[in-house]
Amino acid sequence: MSLSVAFKHFVRPRRLPVHLLSRASSTQIKFSCVDAHAARESRLKASLSQKPISKADTGPEPPYGRPKPSTYRIYRHSQPFSLTYHSTPLPSFDIAYETWGTLSPAHDNVILVHTGLSASSHAASTMANPAPGWWEKFIGPGKAIDTNQFFVICTNVLGGCYGSTGPSSIEPETGKPWATRFPILSIFDMVRAQFHLLDYLGIDKLYASVGSSMGGMQSLAAGWLFPDRVGKIVSISGTARSTPASIAMRYAQRSVLMADPNWNNGFYYDGLPPHTGMKLARQIATITYRSGPEWDQRFGRHLRPLPDLDQSEKRVPALCPDFLIETYLDHQGEQFCLEYDANSLIYISKAMDLFDMTQHVLDELNLKPSSHALRSHPSAGLPHGTSHSKSHPPPVNPAPHLSALAEGMTPLAHIPTLVLGVQSDILFTVEQQREVATALRLAGNQSVSYYELGGVWGHDTFLLDVLNVGGAVRGFLS
Amino acid sequence: MSLSVAFKHFVRPRRLPVHLLSRASSTQIKFSCVDAHAARESRLKASLSQKPISKADTGPEPPYGRPKPSTYRIYRHSQPFSLTYHSTPLPSFDIAYETWGTLSPAHDNVILVHTGLSASSHAASTMANPAPGWWEKFIGPGKAIDTNQFFVICTNVLGGCYGSTGPSSIEPETGKPWATRFPILSIFDMVRAQFHLLDYLGIDKLYASVGSSMGGMQSLAAGWLFPDRVGKIVSISGTARSTPASIAMRYAQRSVLMADPNWNNGFYYDGLPPHTGMKLARQIATITYRSGPEWDQRFGRHLRPLPDLDQSEKRVPALCPDFLIETYLDHQGEQFCLEYDANSLIYISKAMDLFDMTQHVLDELNLKPSSHALRSHPSAGLPHGTSHSKSHPPPVNPAPHLSALAEGMTPLAHIPTLVLGVQSDILFTVEQQREVATALRLAGNQSVSYYELGGVWGHDTFLLDVLNVGGAVRGFLS
Repeated sequence: MSLSVAFKHFVRPRRLPVHLLSRASSTQIKFSCVDAHAARESRLKASLSQKPISKADTGPEPPYGRPKPSTYRIYRHSQPFSLTYHSTPLPSFDIAYETWGTLSPAHDNVILVHTGLSASSHAASTMANPAPGWWEKFIGPGKAIDTNQFFVICTNVLGGCYGSTGPSSIEPETGKPWATRFPILSIFDMVRAQFHLLDYLGIDKLYASVGSSMGGMQSLAAGWLFPDRVGKIVSISGTARSTPASIAMRYAQRSVLMADPNWNNGFYYDGLPPHTGMKLARQIATITYRSGPEWDQRFGRHLRPLPDLDQSEKRVPALCPDFLIETYLDHQGEQFCLEYDANSLIYISKAMDLFDMTQHVLDELNLKPSSHALRSHPSAGLPHGTSHSKSHPPPVNPAPHLSALAEGMTPLAHIPTLVLGVQSDILFTVEQQREVATALRLAGNQSVSYYELGGVWGHDTFLLDVLNVGGAVRGFLS
Repeated sequence: MSLSVAFKHFVRPRRLPVHLLSRASSTQIKFSCVDAHAARESRLKASLSQKPISKADTGPEPPYGRPKPSTYRIYRHSQPFSLTYHSTPLPSFDIAYETWGTLSPAHDNVILVHTGLSASSHAASTMANPAPGWWEKFIGPGKAIDTNQFFVICTNVLGGCYGSTGPSSIEPETGKPWATRFPILSIFDMVRAQFHLLDYLGIDKLYASVGSSMGGMQSLAAGWLFPDRVGKIVSISGTARSTPASIAMRYAQRSVLMADPNWNNGFYYDGLPPHTGMKLARQIATITYRSGPEWDQRFGRHLRPLPDLDQSEKRVPALCPDFLIETYLDHQGEQFCLEYDANSLIYISKAMDLFDMTQHVLDELNLKPSSHALRSHPSAGLPHGTSHSKSHPPPVNPAPHLSALAEGMTPLAHIPTLVLGVQSDILFTVEQQREVATALRLAGNQSVSYYELGGVWGHDTFLLDVLNVGGAVRGFLS
């Protein structure tokens, strides 16, 4: 048996004593976790050569998966669409959407559900697509968002890659994917695009705007942009102002992605996607989505099983994944790296970083609430009405940034709002949840419901905790 | 002015409207943060071609910096050195060390200072090297570790790249760098190597073993391995058992590093080092070393200045670093990426992951304290003596893993120990500090001093907070 065969099945030479290893040449030491990138690249190259990339005007079909077009509807906006950061409008856009339940004759039972960064419009299973959605346990007959009562809409965000216009879409003028010629987006742009869809559907006012994570930002932005068109707001593990720590974590993801040579300044649509960068980015993201205490319980310090190791042999640790937590992160990255468009990740994560409802930031961007929103709010100031939460009363002398945030959030003063956060969330920390609730109250909102959950699931709690998150949402919507 | 010139000075085209951008070809869109990797690669290649890599037997001189050999002493251990995880010993090793103060005639005033992952032996300035050391403010005449009183030793760890034997060192048998043929190390191996140095220096017993971060692990391991040779232990922001969350963060760093094609399975010493992977790894590490509250205060949401932007122009955000927190991380990565050996980072971070003083883990590794350490400890059990800390008394019914950890730490039962942690530390969390203190007390240690600091500096507090960290250390050592 040659050395190279001996190494093939082992991540790191475990059985060979050091004096044997030292005779192996550099090319004979193998790291399966590293070779996985090259193996994936070979598979992708082979599949590309067999099946040329489609250049149909629905956009190219890069090797990452996306839902079949038949499983969602498309709203096509053919007019130029103005943007927050660019003076030149987007020439047109598509928004992919799905619906559940029945629109009432008065059109007054509509809930718009906003997604996190990477989710599609497929929030729950439909006739067209029976696969479970990303919020399957929360949306349906008798569930927290009860489709017996509500007409629920979920869209893929502007900038996404699941049917809505984004960097992977064809730019009308060139007939090629936008790539990084795509304009920088804001959360407000995403929400304004959604309200064009609502106009098209004949929906004047939402019963509620509901969102988690980035969707929480959108939910607040919807109420801010259209205070007369949003009945209630739910913000779960969101924020009104991204912090440097969350920017840092998204920056780390963009950095590893953009350093992948396959990223090619964003122009990879006729070749290989930056699958290695995407895998590494997802590993970092996964760390921010979960929490240490959950991993203590779930993985502890357990090692991955090595079925072919003799019981009598002493196990030598590997440089490739060795602990279960490492194989978990490796798996999460592997699952995601061909599922999602790298440029969508870059653009949407950037939009999250830029989100800030502080007054002077909104002023600089020349953002204004629509219609009657600029009416004066005589009740603004310290709250004096009832509140569902007794904890975290607004400070008597709020920090300057909090006052400025409250000033920016004044258009939300009359919209009942549920703010729900999770103590183990390291990405959208509980301090940010308290900040949102406090700023709303300082802005004069007397109908702020505030819930702070324990538990070990961190940021991902909104996807998992049907009992507490679902219960709070159901109670607030009823 | 051509488009490519217009882009040259701007990270992302800021002044060109979208309709102009759309005419630019893919090769004309520039991302300076991405181009920086290629530019660095070109510079490194040029310097390599001008100055061939030295093949002297002190090891090759890769392009990353290391202290000049004259600034530290070398202890050369020419005998085979047994290892925790490999049955074949390391044939020999070097340990680089520096000292401060004067050894007392009785050799009873010695403090061994253990470093974090990437530090050299240069803990403080010396005659040979007047550059400030990594703990400059803590070591010196009249400082927390008072060199008027103590003889202080600091080493580069086994596995490092600042003079001690590690993966970049020459393997005697082949005359080439070990690279990833280097054996996996344990924290215990590192400490045993240090005690060979102490033997050589004629030091039978340490007045104290003092360490921060990984050095905290070593400090505990020193007391465990040599309970009769360690008078006092200081563990600052360390742990007795790495958690899955900290393993995850180090795994993310190893992953980006090992995915860099220049890493080449660890065999890069006659070519380019994985400088891009190192930069990305350091960005991730920096996130774990600091804390969100500090960044709120220090960077907030401020953008980096763009001196050549007209005041009248609206600033368009960039995909490259834009917020100050991003430029900070970028700078930290850039500073580090040629300073340190990638394989040392991989091996030493792995040793940190593997560290676990739980009894059954120590049993499996066949680790035993030396000399009289296995004497019985009749006082083991719940503490009943005085303790400097009133907070966090040991639980009456400790969790099983805590009992097992306490059992493993029994050899430390008679060594006065200072455990100091920081509430804003996300890498070595305050829960881990409490765990160390509790396990020591459960093991019967009646002289545990426990300090828990507030503040916003996170894990890096041990490098910065002279007043509180220094004060606690000084008080404990006196």
